[in-house]
Amino acid sequence: MSNTSPVTVLGLGDMGRALAAAFLAEERATTVWNRTAAKADELISLGAVRADSVAEAVTGSPLVVVCLLDYGVVRETLEPVAGQLRGRTVVNLTNGTPSQAAEMAAWVTGHGGDYLDGGIMAVPTTVATPEAFILYSGEQRIFDTYRGVLGELGSARYLGDDIGLASLYDLALLSGMHLMFDGFHHAVAMATSQEGGSAFGFTELLVPWLTNMARLLPAFAAEVDADLTTAAEPRLTQGLDVQVSGLANIMDAARDAGVSTTPLESSMAALEALLAHGHKVWSAPASVRQLRTAP
Amino acid sequence: MSNTSPVTVLGLGDMGRALAAAFLAEERATTVWNRTAAKADELISLGAVRADSVAEAVTGSPLVVVCLLDYGVVRETLEPVAGQLRGRTVVNLTNGTPSQAAEMAAWVTGHGGDYLDGGIMAVPTTVATPEAFILYSGEQRIFDTYRGVLGELGSARYLGDDIGLASLYDLALLSGMHLMFDGFHHAVAMATSQEGGSAFGFTELLVPWLTNMARLLPAFAAEVDADLTTAAEPRLTQGLDVQVSGLANIMDAARDAGVSTTPLESSMAALEALLAHGHKVWSAPASVRQLRTAP
Repeated sequence: MSNTSPVTVLGLGDMGRALAAAFLAEERATTVWNRTAAKADELISLGAVRADSVAEAVTGSPLVVVCLLDYGVVRETLEPVAGQLRGRTVVNLTNGTPSQAAEMAAWVTGHGGDYLDGGIMAVPTTVATPEAFILYSGEQRIFDTYRGVLGELGSARYLGDDIGLASLYDLALLSGMHLMFDGFHHAVAMATSQEGGSAFGFTELLVPWLTNMARLLPAFAAEVDADLTTAAEPRLTQGLDVQVSGLANIMDAARDAGVSTTPLESSMAALEALLAHGHKVWSAPASVRQLRTAP
Repeated sequence: MSNTSPVTVLGLGDMGRALAAAFLAEERATTVWNRTAAKADELISLGAVRADSVAEAVTGSPLVVVCLLDYGVVRETLEPVAGQLRGRTVVNLTNGTPSQAAEMAAWVTGHGGDYLDGGIMAVPTTVATPEAFILYSGEQRIFDTYRGVLGELGSARYLGDDIGLASLYDLALLSGMHLMFDGFHHAVAMATSQEGGSAFGFTELLVPWLTNMARLLPAFAAEVDADLTTAAEPRLTQGLDVQVSGLANIMDAARDAGVSTTPLESSMAALEALLAHGHKVWSAPASVRQLRTAP
């Protein structure tokens, strides 16, 4: 191993295995642990060191990368080795919320360890490819120490020292993805409702369409910022009547095709609420404002 | 005008004006009409011919491109000139449903006209750019006659002689876009819930993320096709527990940030229904099948 700073990976689900494999591909000494030990077998054949216990795993490296099901499992896993965290750095890439991140940071630092929270913006198959990026938040000093190592997993994006930022942005991006995937399922259900309709063929239209439409988002976002800071009037608007009529057409066609309209109903209710409040036009700031339920 | 086959555009909203401007940019003789005549002024200055009545507009060209609010308005507009449709071609790019397209086709052909239905996959500012494409369905002979002219608006994609196909695919693509935009609004509401959060800055992460994730869709779509044709077991699956836990985290973080969870609730209900039916893993075919309400 030519790469001398060793790393430990706790949790070898699909994502954890991809992370460990990325370190191994960089010839980094990598210790791995998983509750079900067999998940490590392929990594061992690639040169990973198997830890038989969490204690052995954590003491194996100054840097411990954690990727487990949820924060409950992270805490349960680390609790018995709390005494071994002093002087080590825990980088927690497990999916969780900002408040869970804050709680975990307090717990790790309370035991003398350093803590970074992170969010992986990749699927297992794209880890360590140019399109993977990973969000980090926590103390800049800690990030700076390990940015090189972490960069082996995908572009390392530091968001700031507010520990909850990485998970907030991670979850926001996942929310966007989630609804885009809902849209994919709904669109495919409609397009394949005709005899001989091909979902794969349809994506030859859908993927460029969504990619083109995603290019409009920064301009909408700029209007959201202007609305928040200066209450400027948005210029990118569309008649609410056109929006409602367009969405009603989608829902009618879905019904005629035997496809549920459920995924679109909250959208229609939101547009109707804007109409009921006397709005004549739709804008991105109006939609974002509508989602803010807090005072 | 060097381009000799003239065209008429009925309806000069943002989209209709963009269509007429695209024809004018190709030096095509273009007659325009709109209920509110002032909408034509800028096009007239670009060389368009103003029609003072629908009859004058329709008789001005063998090809009449229609882009109005909805099919009700299209019918209302064309009804008084039904006698002038014989031997002409109506290309209706108004947003509507497959059954509306079938009804309109029957009405136009009943009056001796040719009819194509279409769906514009562009926004007004991207009409006639390389990213614009327009879906057409109807008789191949009619499409072949005008494919060159129609190609001036954006890449002309012929879907087949089933008259409803263009609007079905158009509405399916719009459904995908609609839900992607819902995701954008929700993601932005979350990301800007922190003091100093910038929606525009956030899109530097969101746009590449959505674009990367959209690249996964053809592989999911292929599994939907395999499921429909051979009931093959999907291989691209994820534990339903991981999906539910991830979505619950998004919803928790949204609540903590004072952001509504409404846009995600139908998604959570769908995952919970899969769990309740004994599914252990999520797959695209399972989600698409869930949306099919018809027997």
